[in-house]
Amino acid sequence: MSTTFDELWSGLHPIGRNRAGGGYRRFSWTPADAEARAWFTAEARARGLRVETDRNGNLWAWWGEPAPGAVVTGSHLDSVPDGGPFDGPLGVAGALAAVDLLKERGFTPSRPIAVTVFVEEEGARFGVPCLGSRLLTGAIAPERARGLADADGVTWASAAARAGVDPERIGADPERLALIGTFVELHIEQGRALAGLDAPVGVAGAVWPHGRWRLDFTGQADHAGTTRLADRNDPMLPFAETVLAARSGAEAYDAVATIGRVQVTPNGTNAIPSRVRAWLDARAPEDVTLRALVEHVNEVARRSSVQHGVALASYQESLTPIVKFQTDLRDRVAAIVGGARPAPVLATGAGHDAGVLAAAVPTAMLFVRNPTGVSHAPEESAERADVHAGVVALADVLADLAGTG
Amino acid sequence: MSTTFDELWSGLHPIGRNRAGGGYRRFSWTPADAEARAWFTAEARARGLRVETDRNGNLWAWWGEPAPGAVVTGSHLDSVPDGGPFDGPLGVAGALAAVDLLKERGFTPSRPIAVTVFVEEEGARFGVPCLGSRLLTGAIAPERARGLADADGVTWASAAARAGVDPERIGADPERLALIGTFVELHIEQGRALAGLDAPVGVAGAVWPHGRWRLDFTGQADHAGTTRLADRNDPMLPFAETVLAARSGAEAYDAVATIGRVQVTPNGTNAIPSRVRAWLDARAPEDVTLRALVEHVNEVARRSSVQHGVALASYQESLTPIVKFQTDLRDRVAAIVGGARPAPVLATGAGHDAGVLAAAVPTAMLFVRNPTGVSHAPEESAERADVHAGVVALADVLADLAGTG
Repeated sequence: MSTTFDELWSGLHPIGRNRAGGGYRRFSWTPADAEARAWFTAEARARGLRVETDRNGNLWAWWGEPAPGAVVTGSHLDSVPDGGPFDGPLGVAGALAAVDLLKERGFTPSRPIAVTVFVEEEGARFGVPCLGSRLLTGAIAPERARGLADADGVTWASAAARAGVDPERIGADPERLALIGTFVELHIEQGRALAGLDAPVGVAGAVWPHGRWRLDFTGQADHAGTTRLADRNDPMLPFAETVLAARSGAEAYDAVATIGRVQVTPNGTNAIPSRVRAWLDARAPEDVTLRALVEHVNEVARRSSVQHGVALASYQESLTPIVKFQTDLRDRVAAIVGGARPAPVLATGAGHDAGVLAAAVPTAMLFVRNPTGVSHAPEESAERADVHAGVVALADVLADLAGTG
Repeated sequence: MSTTFDELWSGLHPIGRNRAGGGYRRFSWTPADAEARAWFTAEARARGLRVETDRNGNLWAWWGEPAPGAVVTGSHLDSVPDGGPFDGPLGVAGALAAVDLLKERGFTPSRPIAVTVFVEEEGARFGVPCLGSRLLTGAIAPERARGLADADGVTWASAAARAGVDPERIGADPERLALIGTFVELHIEQGRALAGLDAPVGVAGAVWPHGRWRLDFTGQADHAGTTRLADRNDPMLPFAETVLAARSGAEAYDAVATIGRVQVTPNGTNAIPSRVRAWLDARAPEDVTLRALVEHVNEVARRSSVQHGVALASYQESLTPIVKFQTDLRDRVAAIVGGARPAPVLATGAGHDAGVLAAAVPTAMLFVRNPTGVSHAPEESAERADVHAGVVALADVLADLAGTG
């Protein structure tokens, strides 16, 4: 098994990787993404799996004939800008390696098994995370998805069409969803909980409610040297107050809030900006605290904008309520993975396709220990032994779920 | 005369203009810049002026043979991103129109007159403002200028070379400088002082000391959803504190300070940034207050960076001490322009090529009223009658300075 995963990984690892910084830029429907998808298709076919693309552009590789009650596992291959190697790819390469391991054991599934690759999980190009799984489950309207545009104004509809996906046919796919008996996702942990617990693999308990908001601060471009302070409408000032409010709000609500993406217009050293556009990413343990946190940030943004003569427009780009994974399935998976002592159960602040699917089908998630907790950065890492423990755990769970008629 | 200026303006106005927003993007050594320089060369030649490019890429159009004691006037044609139409071009088109007016009057200069176009006045592409005049006067070392790079890493040396300027020959040009008897620059006002004084044209008294500083806040890229607040090294937070410190410092010192340019890496919605790079533009009435203001901003940046586990590097990109224009020349020009009541004398927070040249040769500046004070933005404007008053004032000053043997 260990050889198989390492071989799979060596094929996937260089795709979309920046040799200078080591970070990944695998954005949906770009050449790097196409290369990663081709890698998956070739590896799945080499294992005798039948590969198909669903109406929303997600890939499915079938072991056995598609039928209701299928055990489905997978993750995504897209990345954030300068992302790490494991976030997503671990769950795809790990699923193929688990299939190899089951075959090596001589296992014959009583239910079909499928390995999936969901598109645009990070939302790095088109702004809405988990777009492929949201479309599949009907959690986003197809007309909204079609109109989502990247930084250059290219829409999802046109980018998907160029990749061979008919944008008129995207949207909720109940027939396909009805095939899924259980969904399991293997993923790198994106914090340090397992490191603290000395466990290589954990099980997800809940996904924090989370969302993204865009704030447009619009002022008046003007000369930085000659415009008196009193005559300014400088949108950078309420923006700065908003950054600090996101932090203080997160502290107050035991949550996390981040402003990591900013666009300044015209972005000249000696020009007061005409506009600052910023994105807020916020996540909290409960739906009610998330709402309160975002309201706090918006309130500070509004008050400071008024004070500086700046117009504010705030848009909710996405919002995912809290996901609590099915308790029975979670405990069954924890028992299989942990052996004598059940695997630890973790809450996570990260959104995942598994979180979206959990609203529609029985779903579980496995996490592989991340020694530093760093993720969404080139330094994201995992020990080889832990990755292999994750593959074995996934194989055991698949065997349990697909092994009983 | 009025017909001449309007005709000149109609040729220059469309070059480098964004039809959507109406703003200009005339960056040094780009196609739009080349088009503007070609416009100048053609218009000057049509007037019988001899056009030459100096060692630093500045253009000179001579009326009469180059000789010591020449009266030189001009400005620049480059713009900030999405700049207005008048900042720079008014002083170039206005100088050519003033030559026309003098010829129409039958004036014969006793000293040579030259019209100049200085390169990279805004510093919008290569970061150092007044680069052409700084090079000419030796205010910047040629090796530093050669290495200045734009956002894509293209150096001044390579961009200038592609435009036909030998980068090995740039730098202080004492022979050329020795030709200048007096330099006069006509410029749009970039505040509302003349509007308040009900005067169409004013004269510069001083240019505030001013400079640019780059601040690099370097933290650790990480996942926005899963990294606990305590584990973060988020450079956006000290950056935000620094933006607010620039404003509070400017208020405390009766100065101006602006952070209008920011680069965030990787700039993803769900990634804590690894780096925020920001530029501070600061200007104050006196050298000592400017130093104190910048020290205040740097001190807040340092303290907040330490607090958030972020590394800070601060660079001074340019610093221009206070320029007080020669009092005798200033008063002579004010008397010529104002007639019975001398023209108002203004201090300005904006840097100009005239400010750089004032360190080397007798220099004066004329300002044309700006009804809104808006500059460095597409909305920058001037009344037609005020522009014409500016051209007449410049012609009168040139006649006075060049008319006496």
